[in-house]
Amino acid sequence: MSKGLSGKEVAQHNTAESCWIIVHGKVYDVTEFLPEHPGGSKIILKYAGKDATAEYDPIHPPNAITDNLPPEKHLGPVDQDTVLKVDVVVTDEEKARQERIQQRPSLTEILNLHDFEAIARQVMSEKAWAYYSSAADDEITHRENHAAYHRIWFRPRVLRNVTNVDWSTKILGHPTKMPIYITATALGKLGHPDGELNLTRAAAKHDIIQMIPTLASCSFDEIVDSAAPGQVQFLQLYVNGDREITKKFVQHAEKRGIKGLFITVDAPQLGRREKDMRMKFEAEDPREVTDNKASNKVDRSQGAARAISSFIDTSLDWKDIPWFQSITKMPLILKGVQCWEDALQAYDMGLAGVVLSNHGGRQLDFARSGIETLVEVVRELKARRGLTFPNEKFQLFVDGGVRRATDVLKAVALGATAVGIGRPFLYAFSAYGQEGVERALQILHDEFEMNMRLLGARTIKEVVPEMVDAGSVHQHIVSVPDDSLYFSNYESMQSARLKDVKSKM
Amino acid sequence: MSKGLSGKEVAQHNTAESCWIIVHGKVYDVTEFLPEHPGGSKIILKYAGKDATAEYDPIHPPNAITDNLPPEKHLGPVDQDTVLKVDVVVTDEEKARQERIQQRPSLTEILNLHDFEAIARQVMSEKAWAYYSSAADDEITHRENHAAYHRIWFRPRVLRNVTNVDWSTKILGHPTKMPIYITATALGKLGHPDGELNLTRAAAKHDIIQMIPTLASCSFDEIVDSAAPGQVQFLQLYVNGDREITKKFVQHAEKRGIKGLFITVDAPQLGRREKDMRMKFEAEDPREVTDNKASNKVDRSQGAARAISSFIDTSLDWKDIPWFQSITKMPLILKGVQCWEDALQAYDMGLAGVVLSNHGGRQLDFARSGIETLVEVVRELKARRGLTFPNEKFQLFVDGGVRRATDVLKAVALGATAVGIGRPFLYAFSAYGQEGVERALQILHDEFEMNMRLLGARTIKEVVPEMVDAGSVHQHIVSVPDDSLYFSNYESMQSARLKDVKSKM
Amino acid sequence: MSKGLSGKEVAQHNTAESCWIIVHGKVYDVTEFLPEHPGGSKIILKYAGKDATAEYDPIHPPNAITDNLPPEKHLGPVDQDTVLKVDVVVTDEEKARQERIQQRPSLTEILNLHDFEAIARQVMSEKAWAYYSSAADDEITHRENHAAYHRIWFRPRVLRNVTNVDWSTKILGHPTKMPIYITATALGKLGHPDGELNLTRAAAKHDIIQMIPTLASCSFDEIVDSAAPGQVQFLQLYVNGDREITKKFVQHAEKRGIKGLFITVDAPQLGRREKDMRMKFEAEDPREVTDNKASNKVDRSQGAARAISSFIDTSLDWKDIPWFQSITKMPLILKGVQCWEDALQAYDMGLAGVVLSNHGGRQLDFARSGIETLVEVVRELKARRGLTFPNEKFQLFVDGGVRRATDVLKAVALGATAVGIGRPFLYAFSAYGQEGVERALQILHDEFEMNMRLLGARTIKEVVPEMVDAGSVHQHIVSVPDDSLYFSNYESMQSARLKDVKSKM
Amino acid sequence: MSKGLSGKEVAQHNTAESCWIIVHGKVYDVTEFLPEHPGGSKIILKYAGKDATAEYDPIHPPNAITDNLPPEKHLGPVDQDTVLKVDVVVTDEEKARQERIQQRPSLTEILNLHDFEAIARQVMSEKAWAYYSSAADDEITHRENHAAYHRIWFRPRVLRNVTNVDWSTKILGHPTKMPIYITATALGKLGHPDGELNLTRAAAKHDIIQMIPTLASCSFDEIVDSAAPGQVQFLQLYVNGDREITKKFVQHAEKRGIKGLFITVDAPQLGRREKDMRMKFEAEDPREVTDNKASNKVDRSQGAARAISSFIDTSLDWKDIPWFQSITKMPLILKGVQCWEDALQAYDMGLAGVVLSNHGGRQLDFARSGIETLVEVVRELKARRGLTFPNEKFQLFVDGGVRRATDVLKAVALGATAVGIGRPFLYAFSAYGQEGVERALQILHDEFEMNMRLLGARTIKEVVPEMVDAGSVHQHIVSVPDDSLYFSNYESMQSARLKDVKSKM
Repeated sequence: MSKGLSGKEVAQHNTAESCWIIVHGKVYDVTEFLPEHPGGSKIILKYAGKDATAEYDPIHPPNAITDNLPPEKHLGPVDQDTVLKVDVVVTDEEKARQERIQQRPSLTEILNLHDFEAIARQVMSEKAWAYYSSAADDEITHRENHAAYHRIWFRPRVLRNVTNVDWSTKILGHPTKMPIYITATALGKLGHPDGELNLTRAAAKHDIIQMIPTLASCSFDEIVDSAAPGQVQFLQLYVNGDREITKKFVQHAEKRGIKGLFITVDAPQLGRREKDMRMKFEAEDPREVTDNKASNKVDRSQGAARAISSFIDTSLDWKDIPWFQSITKMPLILKGVQCWEDALQAYDMGLAGVVLSNHGGRQLDFARSGIETLVEVVRELKARRGLTFPNEKFQLFVDGGVRRATDVLKAVALGATAVGIGRPFLYAFSAYGQEGVERALQILHDEFEMNMRLLGARTIKEVVPEMVDAGSVHQHIVSVPDDSLYFSNYESMQSARLKDVKSKM
Repeated sequence: MSKGLSGKEVAQHNTAESCWIIVHGKVYDVTEFLPEHPGGSKIILKYAGKDATAEYDPIHPPNAITDNLPPEKHLGPVDQDTVLKVDVVVTDEEKARQERIQQRPSLTEILNLHDFEAIARQVMSEKAWAYYSSAADDEITHRENHAAYHRIWFRPRVLRNVTNVDWSTKILGHPTKMPIYITATALGKLGHPDGELNLTRAAAKHDIIQMIPTLASCSFDEIVDSAAPGQVQFLQLYVNGDREITKKFVQHAEKRGIKGLFITVDAPQLGRREKDMRMKFEAEDPREVTDNKASNKVDRSQGAARAISSFIDTSLDWKDIPWFQSITKMPLILKGVQCWEDALQAYDMGLAGVVLSNHGGRQLDFARSGIETLVEVVRELKARRGLTFPNEKFQLFVDGGVRRATDVLKAVALGATAVGIGRPFLYAFSAYGQEGVERALQILHDEFEMNMRLLGARTIKEVVPEMVDAGSVHQHIVSVPDDSLYFSNYESMQSARLKDVKSKM
Repeated sequence: MSKGLSGKEVAQHNTAESCWIIVHGKVYDVTEFLPEHPGGSKIILKYAGKDATAEYDPIHPPNAITDNLPPEKHLGPVDQDTVLKVDVVVTDEEKARQERIQQRPSLTEILNLHDFEAIARQVMSEKAWAYYSSAADDEITHRENHAAYHRIWFRPRVLRNVTNVDWSTKILGHPTKMPIYITATALGKLGHPDGELNLTRAAAKHDIIQMIPTLASCSFDEIVDSAAPGQVQFLQLYVNGDREITKKFVQHAEKRGIKGLFITVDAPQLGRREKDMRMKFEAEDPREVTDNKASNKVDRSQGAARAISSFIDTSLDWKDIPWFQSITKMPLILKGVQCWEDALQAYDMGLAGVVLSNHGGRQLDFARSGIETLVEVVRELKARRGLTFPNEKFQLFVDGGVRRATDVLKAVALGATAVGIGRPFLYAFSAYGQEGVERALQILHDEFEMNMRLLGARTIKEVVPEMVDAGSVHQHIVSVPDDSLYFSNYESMQSARLKDVKSKM
Repeated sequence: MSKGLSGKEVAQHNTAESCWIIVHGKVYDVTEFLPEHPGGSKIILKYAGKDATAEYDPIHPPNAITDNLPPEKHLGPVDQDTVLKVDVVVTDEEKARQERIQQRPSLTEILNLHDFEAIARQVMSEKAWAYYSSAADDEITHRENHAAYHRIWFRPRVLRNVTNVDWSTKILGHPTKMPIYITATALGKLGHPDGELNLTRAAAKHDIIQMIPTLASCSFDEIVDSAAPGQVQFLQLYVNGDREITKKFVQHAEKRGIKGLFITVDAPQLGRREKDMRMKFEAEDPREVTDNKASNKVDRSQGAARAISSFIDTSLDWKDIPWFQSITKMPLILKGVQCWEDALQAYDMGLAGVVLSNHGGRQLDFARSGIETLVEVVRELKARRGLTFPNEKFQLFVDGGVRRATDVLKAVALGATAVGIGRPFLYAFSAYGQEGVERALQILHDEFEMNMRLLGARTIKEVVPEMVDAGSVHQHIVSVPDDSLYFSNYESMQSARLKDVKSKM
């Protein structure tokens, strides 16, 4: 039996005129694809005739190359023994990053979910940080997602026996130890070689539900395979323009035991994320940028998100919902609903729930936060259909901006069944791998225990609307621009000072 | 035939006692005009007896000198061959600026309209930057124009087939590829030698409508001449105290094919712009400032705006409207309406529309933003005349503070037919010429495509009031002054840190 | 006739045991007064046996020493020829200040009222700056006075013939060229040797009314004497515990032609101004501070304000009003009213008006701004007595925080007859003497002309309530404390940048 | 009679295998307790075989060791003469701190309560500062406690005879010179060797009531013993899981003359205070942190608060109230009520009052401030039970965030009987001992005198609701996230400047 193409042969196709690369032991002729590569041709040419797997893996979903190249460009396996190792030049920047990784504080010093982000920002590659942290336009909605929680305050109850507090609950009928789930985020290997598996394994340990992303770095089956027996997983779905692909994927997922299908409806086109786009130019061959401008054929400036999402169907419509209902018995939830009208429509069409979400602020800037939309949806669905929330038949979820158990408890008090958390877990495994995610979940447990007691709620059912004051949630205030001349004249008050200048600060 | 005055003869009149200058090949005796020159006499005396065209051009409308000097001071043409070249001393500051121009990033790196301003600020002359960027008093309204958009949030709809989205529309019956137009701004040559022609040409390429300013650096006919066949142009009008001049101008414009007349009503006197005024003093001869103070005859401190606008008629009144209706068939629009009462009056007098504008914050500080006024106008004109907007018969426009397609979509959702954009295009050509304006328009196209899809609107008609929450737009909040003593004592929370200090930031 | 005591004799009383000083040519024995001197004994002892006039003058009302020392300590005139000059040691700090004075920009470069403050802060002595600029407690109200105007926005009218605009009006029946008056502020000589006379003379030139302060550095008669023929002056009155003194003063003022009596009612005790108090310690003899603490008899830490105001009657009451009405025919106005209840009471008792004021933020911190109180007073006096404003019979004034003609026009639109301006004029003469005040008034004229035109108001009568939106004036917002951990993780958006680092900024 | 164990013998038990320590002259075998010590074993091992009293005292309540060690580990007294002195190594940091202590400004330079904090922050140990200043989670509520007062403004009255103003009142029937009391705070010796006695003695001098904390550094009896004859003291109670202990403590307190029992109800579990927790790691043995992580048996990262509070009963319930009423005749007040529902319940169960408090922001983050809750409680108890406040039968107290007499007066105007002040007094004695607390009280007196006069209130009864405007108190605003790109482009206005750069600032 043939061992495949020889490395030597592959190595000869190392120019823009004939460019072969090896990925996961297979050879591909990408010559014609070069000008269309969303990441630019330069980065491919660096691996022309060589094994590109290490570079390829973290920034592509596993089947990106097989899906995008026509079959005749799939040249078959290579004889691995004959392939020369690529000498990876470690840049000074990368060396500095490796040093920073050595300087991470111990996990016991991580006190809250913010801490993971602070460390991840230091130890992730620039590219990964740009992809994870970026959001749409001016990133107003991205930050509003967090800020909106700060407009909601507690009205705690006292003198209740809170010796035993229990913050477990059910999501779509499945038990979870906390009213949260790990929501879908793309390209997990950018942050850590094990990618999404970090989440799967930590979720198993803590009896938490993970939502598997369509655009995972690991393959769907890999993620399902690494689940513990009985571990509940959901699936986030980007609907493909080719509905047969989607049907196959959905039915495969159902067979593999997925318990809920979250159809993303807020991303007919993936957002422009300028931090991510700006990152591109630093890696770009200036000469090519000029050429590119001349030809104008491919706009490489759209960042990773665009590159991997061209298959998403822009025509998805309410009319497609019955079709989904016909191909699967999994509960269907719309992810990305942003006003009561659409939530009502979802209810009326018999769906199992909606995620009130703006995609982490990565799609439409100035979309409102999920937590603000929640207040509106609960009010209107009560007024129009007599529903009360949390509601087993039609469940409301919220994601975006959550950093504390108090954020979750606010959402629950206002009617959410559970809250999706995404980036904090990405940052947790980017900084510390699976152990990081476990520590993050443990921190949330500690916070839930504390805050349930302080709220006077023994169970999630006792976390009721009267426990929060959301009266300011709809306020979108921008202060009158400041009066520079006045303020530059004003001399701030000064405290008493030590006689000498030897102050501590 | 005479070749005109000889350069040698002109060169003898190089003192304050007898000062001739050459502009565009003609000689002018400006001796008596010296003390009245709004820019100060010093700058003229620098060119006494010489050719001042290069200095003159960018900061004067083309006919400034002919209009301001009595005919007997027009000494006729000069024999160009005999004129000595003026040695322009390139200052260090100018050299540094020229270097910065060489350092501009490529246009593909410009990701949004803010970027043009960031680059223009670096590569424009101080004088040009001061003139373009300055606004009235404390520049509160100038910034509020932008800030007001941030108090308006979206309520997007999902699950609509947004494969095809179309953001073209009509303005006064004329098609435009986007619901925007290039609004009138003065003195285009301050930013680029081609001045307003950069806008004309880019507008042609993108099927966008340009509004020609009365105070353009290029002459009106030059701008009309460089339009493409069929290209639609509007005219912004400052009404002259001498109505015959205005009549001639308006009727000439109509003959040249102008499709709409936007009469500026918010500038009976041009605003005090202190950044622009402060700029003056740096160019001034200190001795002269002292003299000036003594005589007090001419206040040179009023900046470029005042200097070029003394002809504007302060007596313009509602009573003049029928006269305008009698001299032209062009649709008449009032530019600078700032409350519903005046919008209603315009409607009742049969005008074609109003621009809700505060002149880019350059006139009355603490005037409200156009977008805020829009909410009020739509409400009251509905209540009082049963109108709904957008409305073909009486069109509402808004300008000021727009930087993103989302800003435009907010205005459209609230009832505007289209939105005027001014400074961003000035900055685009100041930084990159015509190509800059084209890139700016392309960026807007990209943003419109994305955001129409994310809003769930396939056409401009589908951008409806329910898609925005403008509930906070009338809030003009200034926080309680801060408590310095308390805050200087408070120690901010600190995230986890790397063990070593070698952090990235 | 005796030439008085000899300088030589006086010079022998130069110790704490026997301490004589010379002020304005007269000798005083202040030995027993030393421990009670609000400014501390050290500063007096520096002049023991010498002429203290130069030091005394700027920080005392003219009759401070005669009023505070018993008659037997008045030792009579000194023979000036025999008095040794005090060698004033010019400190390095003072030299630096004198240099800064030389560096003042020319008056034509002063563009607004803020500019005077910016220069004054540089050229005044620390002591004078501390006294003028300080306010009560955390200076919240002080800054709120200005901030409140920023919560009020304009609704300007267009297409009105504004060729002729006239912002003159009447105050208590007396014409003024602008709807402002110079309000009373103490200790003018701290800022300039001519003290309040700078204001008198500039007011005369501009036909503006000056309100003479009780605590002027110049004597009342000096100020009245320097008025131009027919110049209108008002008097601000601190009521003395000894009503005979007050009666004499008021009747003297009336005889001298004062046209209105503004009785201060917001200062039964003068405020603690901590900036002023903190200043003290730097001048203090540390040894004495210790002694002082031990004895605790006199608290020297209360700043200039307390020192000069001990005579003010804390018992002043509504019951005293008829007595004032009995001793003078001058119109009586209460200065410092802060709620509608007291304004109504003033109206019901037949007074001529009230000044809605919080004493420039120098008395009760968290008192509301005059402009906010105005809205309330106009509303309630309309509801309860059917009054409309501006009202000739019962006039409303506002002071505090005014820096622009737009501020004044907001107050006028809301019902004020005129607005008092204090500190800006202090800063104007502290920086430039009388010419500074004239320039300040000229700037206001320029701003009024511009802004009346832009508002569409030809006369003060046309400045009507509909021209402002004061809907946010009662909002006292303090933002939710910021989330340091979140914000320190967030990476701000960055604009496009020049390739090289040679940017301008 | 035996002199006890010899120091030599104790000194042999100086390892983790056998670890004895001496505290207050008694020997304890803490070998088995080592892994459970909340402060980590390392710090104990440092004193193994030695006298640990100096280290032990400030951070433990007096009976911590006797309560936590089983009786058989109490090895009895040591012969003090035979104990070797522990050589305390003075670190550089400590030396610097001692120097800063020498540089404290004199007390007369302390002008307000903020000043104490500014000095204390410089002169306290890091550990003490972290414990006192830290609060829950993101410390939002901690700062909101102060900020909420800034949303409440005054409506002062004028022309009232305020010669005599009196701000004394009664709390639970006991006279106090001011409407404040010293509220309970733990571990006073962290700040000063005399701990809570500083407060007792200063309170006696000023006729102010002190609330004794359960977790004082000094023993309860010590504090009561140092009270002056007739001095009123209250007791703050953490309820023990073992109710007999609580019963004994309460009845002992009543016998000792305590006049009110404040049962803490907002702390079934003590809060996570991350500043305090982060402090830990700096003192920790890195090796042990690793071990700890492995074993995971004890979480040492919870800070001082958790360490000392494990006895607190989480099961405390409304059902326990009658039991308290049965064991004591002292008036019972609930400390930590945070909504009207619980205040109403307390009233209905016949309690004497409630403290509207969130434990200084140290428990539940996003709990509302006491002053905001006060507005709600007064409104609802009036609506539901017809009560008016202040009310002798059911008294409302507020604590948290108070720094000025104006803060207190706002609370009194809104219905509070008195206001608790905690941290400012801690900082006062940490910086200056008892004299600091006295100065703090004197400053409050000065502020009360001033502000009562300026409010126009002669007595506390005259401080009425109409004197404040609390209309914005319920507003919890977070601004729309800022637009970095826009703001980085905007160039701030600049004031006029000196010609030269030699400016003062």
